[in-house]
Amino acid sequence: MEADRSEEWSKGNPRAYAQEHRLQFLDALREFVRVPSISTLPEHHGDLQRAAEWTVRRLSEIGLAARIMPSETHPAVYAEWTGAPGRPTLLCYGHYDVQPPDPLDLWTSPPFEPAQRGDDLYGRGASDDKGQLLIQVFAVESLLKAAGRLPLNVKFFIEGEEEIGSPRMIPFIKKHRQQLRADISLICDGSFFAPERPALVTALRGMVYTEVELRGANRDLHSGIFGGAAPNPLEGLARIIAGLKDRKSRVTIPRYYAPVQPPGEAERSSWNQLGFRDEAYLEDLGVEVAPGEEGYGILERRWARPTLEIHGIAGGYTGPGAKTVIPARATAKISMRLVTDQRPQAVLRAFTRKVQRLTPPGFRVEVRQLGSGAPLTLSPDAPALRHAARALQEVFGRPPVFMREGGTVPVAAEFMNVLQAPPVLMGFGLPDDNLHSPNEKFHLPNFYRGIETVIRFMEFVGESGVRVSG
Amino acid sequence: MEADRSEEWSKGNPRAYAQEHRLQFLDALREFVRVPSISTLPEHHGDLQRAAEWTVRRLSEIGLAARIMPSETHPAVYAEWTGAPGRPTLLCYGHYDVQPPDPLDLWTSPPFEPAQRGDDLYGRGASDDKGQLLIQVFAVESLLKAAGRLPLNVKFFIEGEEEIGSPRMIPFIKKHRQQLRADISLICDGSFFAPERPALVTALRGMVYTEVELRGANRDLHSGIFGGAAPNPLEGLARIIAGLKDRKSRVTIPRYYAPVQPPGEAERSSWNQLGFRDEAYLEDLGVEVAPGEEGYGILERRWARPTLEIHGIAGGYTGPGAKTVIPARATAKISMRLVTDQRPQAVLRAFTRKVQRLTPPGFRVEVRQLGSGAPLTLSPDAPALRHAARALQEVFGRPPVFMREGGTVPVAAEFMNVLQAPPVLMGFGLPDDNLHSPNEKFHLPNFYRGIETVIRFMEFVGESGVRVSG
Repeated sequence: MEADRSEEWSKGNPRAYAQEHRLQFLDALREFVRVPSISTLPEHHGDLQRAAEWTVRRLSEIGLAARIMPSETHPAVYAEWTGAPGRPTLLCYGHYDVQPPDPLDLWTSPPFEPAQRGDDLYGRGASDDKGQLLIQVFAVESLLKAAGRLPLNVKFFIEGEEEIGSPRMIPFIKKHRQQLRADISLICDGSFFAPERPALVTALRGMVYTEVELRGANRDLHSGIFGGAAPNPLEGLARIIAGLKDRKSRVTIPRYYAPVQPPGEAERSSWNQLGFRDEAYLEDLGVEVAPGEEGYGILERRWARPTLEIHGIAGGYTGPGAKTVIPARATAKISMRLVTDQRPQAVLRAFTRKVQRLTPPGFRVEVRQLGSGAPLTLSPDAPALRHAARALQEVFGRPPVFMREGGTVPVAAEFMNVLQAPPVLMGFGLPDDNLHSPNEKFHLPNFYRGIETVIRFMEFVGESGVRVSG
Repeated sequence: MEADRSEEWSKGNPRAYAQEHRLQFLDALREFVRVPSISTLPEHHGDLQRAAEWTVRRLSEIGLAARIMPSETHPAVYAEWTGAPGRPTLLCYGHYDVQPPDPLDLWTSPPFEPAQRGDDLYGRGASDDKGQLLIQVFAVESLLKAAGRLPLNVKFFIEGEEEIGSPRMIPFIKKHRQQLRADISLICDGSFFAPERPALVTALRGMVYTEVELRGANRDLHSGIFGGAAPNPLEGLARIIAGLKDRKSRVTIPRYYAPVQPPGEAERSSWNQLGFRDEAYLEDLGVEVAPGEEGYGILERRWARPTLEIHGIAGGYTGPGAKTVIPARATAKISMRLVTDQRPQAVLRAFTRKVQRLTPPGFRVEVRQLGSGAPLTLSPDAPALRHAARALQEVFGRPPVFMREGGTVPVAAEFMNVLQAPPVLMGFGLPDDNLHSPNEKFHLPNFYRGIETVIRFMEFVGESGVRVSG
């Protein structure tokens, strides 16, 4: 029985369907990019609703049961096709919201009027993430139209608050864990390591983002009258920050590195094939050295080592000229990126204790958490990644490299930890797509080949015939 | 001949004149306070001109040759009476500009509608410095009206930019050094140590105010992608700041303390009579300890020790919530207060070298000077201070205490260094006058007694018959 069905699907030739419908897919992408669904700007509230509705309509038209799921911020979109009982279920993820387009004067063509130049489509969200979201939608469309059915069960979970840090999505996923349950998840929201160099992401760093507040005197003081005999919270914060790393730039929080697992041989050897050169990296940043933890290479420090960064220090006077104030309080925004087995809440507790110990006499200190996300680590040997690698190799003609990403995608870790659906992070952007910057673009050959890759990925997962995890 | 003149002056009884004209003096002060001469606000430009003209008119009416001297900011006022050849020349200083009055809703009566409640006159500038400026004017008026002449030569130098740090006054004084030349100067712009506790100030701290800029990468970076392998200028500044003091809170700039002279026995014993209590100081600030240089008392650290304070750190993100930016650059405003023989330009050079040495690899650093003023130290035994002490004792019935002030009055050091006219810093405010705050007031008994004190001071200096300095 299984063999028969498999033959029926391949007869329909979904890849041929996808190739024949490139113009229609491009038209749809253009239409989607025209909606200025900027999640951080309240005046675009209506555009987010429109983008969510557009997504529901599109998913319904190709034959999925789709609907809006209200969230406390911007609506999520849910859709499903569950006509393959006994087959694995894949959860497809994307986001319909985009970054603000400013500075507008640096755009060659207006950000929400998509313009094709050469092989690229320019427009805010073309790559991040509307184009990559649609890759998954059109892969499903091609499979359904060419074969009348899918080789596996599919659920779509599309959010509208990714660009503001998905503040409500972790509780949302926990609340709807039964509905979102899947065997694997697919996240198309990333990039190749280099052109013609497809990549699979095997790890994301997690994060704890904090604000440390130091309070000194009960009011701002004049540094002439009180200077030398009063607590200065800016100096106190500087001493705390300096104390959080040692001379080798290692974070001094006790047992901070204890849960960290080094990358395996397979990953290291894959990194060596990336063609990464320290000199090119330094030149790109315009620096002579890249400060960081001693004893580790630049890629390892960005991908496989936890770190601690300062994002801003408030308090006192920062306007033009001189003001002789000793502020009553000052705050610092400090985040830590986490890897492998580090747990955000345990790190937060250890960080808080360390900050308290580093606080000089004369101050009161408070540590607040502003955000958190768990790290994610995948084995390059996991079956889902092998299916993805095979699909990429088939469509792009060369095997993908395994890389990591230093950033945090909170939902990815939740797919793993809450839904037990290990994510495949397969991005089709290019490193020069100008994400979050003026002149964002999507390389259209990657758009079209991405659809074919996801078609093949779904077929491989479906053909594997058994649940991939669990 | 000298004896005759002296008798003639005392016969006229200027103090009796001053007592008889209290109501007129108070009316004039009310009129002066009504002019909202806020030097930092461009929309009050016309009011500064009006206040300067008002001062010129008043000085002319009592018989001085007075005129406006244009400055690059707000006009200065100059006046002189030079009818006592062979006698010392006294340079009287004050400022007609005032601080902004906000927050307005905390004022009991409007800041520029002077209101008397009990013995106090409320209004912005009543104490700082219109009332104290007029004390000197009315002392001269009383002497001239009662005796027809002054016991010494008098020059007035009144500025309109004190509340914005006198940015153009140091070059102004240098440029007009011949015209402003005097044997002593008098600065009435301060306060008693406590009510009924007249004080003479024997030292002011100097200052070097700097801005340190640290540059890392050529653009702002995402801490997910680059964190751990990029220069973070906020972290770099924190390390520099932490390195500028040692564990005993001593400034680590080489030879920083070398020129510092400790206060003498007379001053120390005077401080012991002030009734200063550490506990009351800590309670006032709401702190349990007052961090500062080890081995020195609180008063000594505020008055007789140099220090280094941080006033603000700019760069990155300080708005609400989380933003994962590693800024390309960050700046810190850092000032040093200087004492006795420390020289601002030498300190600036040593500070700059120390900051350069503390700058970690991967950064470029720049130190900019935003302001400077030399410290001032006077001997309590100087003849001018003895005349001032005698006048205060006679009018207030008790000898003044010798105190210092931790703040910087740039013109005071210039009077000493450029004009060779040692300043007498004799203030008639009270510690609760709310300078720079809502409900500023001037205690009227101090206004009236201040006029009599300055009359007696001028008589003593004049009677000394010889130039006091030089």
